[in-house]
Amino acid sequence: MSAASIQPPKRLLFGPGPTQVEARVYEALGKPVVGHLDPYYFEVMGEVRRLLRHVFGTANECTFPISGTGSAGMETAVANFVEPGSKFAVFANGFFCDRLTEMGKRQGAQVVRLEKPWGETFTADEAAEFLRRERPQVAAFVHAETSTGALQDPKAITSAAREIDALVIADTVTSLGANAVNIDENGIDIAYSCSQKGLSCPPGLAPFTASARALERLARRQSPMVEWYLDLRLLLDYYDGKKYHHTASSSILYGLRESLKSIEEEGLPNRVERHIENHLALVLGLEALGLTMHVKEGQRIPNLNTPQVPAGVDDAKVRKYLLDRHGIEIAGGFGPLAGRIFRIGLMGPLSNESCVNLFLGAIEEALAA
Amino acid sequence: MSAASIQPPKRLLFGPGPTQVEARVYEALGKPVVGHLDPYYFEVMGEVRRLLRHVFGTANECTFPISGTGSAGMETAVANFVEPGSKFAVFANGFFCDRLTEMGKRQGAQVVRLEKPWGETFTADEAAEFLRRERPQVAAFVHAETSTGALQDPKAITSAAREIDALVIADTVTSLGANAVNIDENGIDIAYSCSQKGLSCPPGLAPFTASARALERLARRQSPMVEWYLDLRLLLDYYDGKKYHHTASSSILYGLRESLKSIEEEGLPNRVERHIENHLALVLGLEALGLTMHVKEGQRIPNLNTPQVPAGVDDAKVRKYLLDRHGIEIAGGFGPLAGRIFRIGLMGPLSNESCVNLFLGAIEEALAA
Repeated sequence: MSAASIQPPKRLLFGPGPTQVEARVYEALGKPVVGHLDPYYFEVMGEVRRLLRHVFGTANECTFPISGTGSAGMETAVANFVEPGSKFAVFANGFFCDRLTEMGKRQGAQVVRLEKPWGETFTADEAAEFLRRERPQVAAFVHAETSTGALQDPKAITSAAREIDALVIADTVTSLGANAVNIDENGIDIAYSCSQKGLSCPPGLAPFTASARALERLARRQSPMVEWYLDLRLLLDYYDGKKYHHTASSSILYGLRESLKSIEEEGLPNRVERHIENHLALVLGLEALGLTMHVKEGQRIPNLNTPQVPAGVDDAKVRKYLLDRHGIEIAGGFGPLAGRIFRIGLMGPLSNESCVNLFLGAIEEALAA
Repeated sequence: MSAASIQPPKRLLFGPGPTQVEARVYEALGKPVVGHLDPYYFEVMGEVRRLLRHVFGTANECTFPISGTGSAGMETAVANFVEPGSKFAVFANGFFCDRLTEMGKRQGAQVVRLEKPWGETFTADEAAEFLRRERPQVAAFVHAETSTGALQDPKAITSAAREIDALVIADTVTSLGANAVNIDENGIDIAYSCSQKGLSCPPGLAPFTASARALERLARRQSPMVEWYLDLRLLLDYYDGKKYHHTASSSILYGLRESLKSIEEEGLPNRVERHIENHLALVLGLEALGLTMHVKEGQRIPNLNTPQVPAGVDDAKVRKYLLDRHGIEIAGGFGPLAGRIFRIGLMGPLSNESCVNLFLGAIEEALAA
């Protein structure tokens, strides 16, 4: 038996995702494949569903990983719950809100948007005024906007949405696993995420959850679904073992199970606290280097830091220096923030004091180079 | 760093898929993740695209893995190329033809079907008569029908389709990697597959290819696309490095690259020949046990064998015995073939003399138990 001939470089993934993966998760990926009808597969899937409920902070029975990336999770939310001809409200303050808008339009919905500059968030008053005026059937917001670094308070949106009986979709792609998303306590009806950010697993699965209230709404849906692969009713039957749909991958599932298990062992509250502490240390260090954070204090995503690029500095050069000299990946801004911010992930195995110091040393060097 | 706590059983995957995975592929899955914008990611993706062209037997520039399972590949083919209001012809002789039908209807197409019993295939005359009469814009057939074990001659369908200028979609989910699919020589316009059957990789990616002729047709498409995740025009821009779409998984890509590399090293013609030889040996052995093959000689899929369940035998009991006593997974029939056939995969690392003998010994025991 010959050995693997592929030899990827070892990166330190300080970008917005994919992020660093623990050795035990890598080991799990290479464990023997079982079929999607094997009793062991159902055992692992059951465990993953239980552990996902834990990190989502929900009792929703409908909680499972979609066989695709975070964007497939977003499309599952929009395609199933936003009907043609309905009104869909999007809180628009970054790139992924624009994607939600695009998907809503493709479904034939009337999309209304409340706009804010990239990096700002919405207050309860702003949300209430907008939702009372528009009275949409569904509203969507991005909990942690990867493109800007801003963290939205979910309750600012869900309270007003509940008042007008709108379903709320939350994008928790960057927040899940590193932040307390508290789906049930926050009154979120539908949420999706990805495996490769706060959950510290490679990409390939999109954790998804929907409340009983959302499923009741889905049962009353009038329009036929165009999508087949992301049809939630077919997926529910499949994950409940009733009817074949697609061949889910045991390999990626093993990886996700292992990373969720690692989170459970650390304890979710400890993990959330660890991310906040190291985020604060990183911000202090960045400010000591003369950098200014793009997002106001109190509205920052702990696991995705967005300092502004100092005047006169070419952000692409800094990123290339970090990658070439230190094997460190970070990301730049895009859209209205292109060239204006760095996007620095500090999550999972990298969220600790020595990685903060290592990173600060490297970026100091890169900025001076 | 703690070790992985997940300990899956070691199965011998003699089912229709997922199938046995080589050690080098497992090893590749656990190699360090890189970002989807890392120069190394593009290098591996370029190599995978080249190797996929090789196994598909095509020069199509548009050849890449979709971030989903084989069913996502099917939906990419149907959603992009079958327009609302158009006529879509399906050669219907098994389960996956019914799925193509369902997806075509969801797209708003008029679906016309030529029906045959499960396990039979279509002749050139039958196909020509049907296509000349119906004159569809797109026709679809399943090359290797996993639900029945029947292998369709592609040219029987593509010749007549070309005559009426219809695009042809081929489902190569079970055939790719273990059979010569010869996309270009066979005149197939669009094909999709999965990673976990003839390619001997875990599930998670759907190899996809489309001809220049198909892409010209797509460029003239009148109706807007509802699907976003599987929108081929967005995917083309993404895989050509022009515009971000989703975060493709380097881990699964490493696995696919490794299995494709293994196929290249063996040589595709050698691999195809190996699958035929061991298939013939297995069939001889099954017939010596008194079993009758469901599909006529000359129309059988070499890597998926479907003997009939002997009268008086409970197929579920046989399958349970094989799994419990030997860790061997095979599948039963479903739909009109439920309880009537076994579905026995013989592919990749299991397609060799000793595995044929091991399997024959185990099933002889199971049938007698």
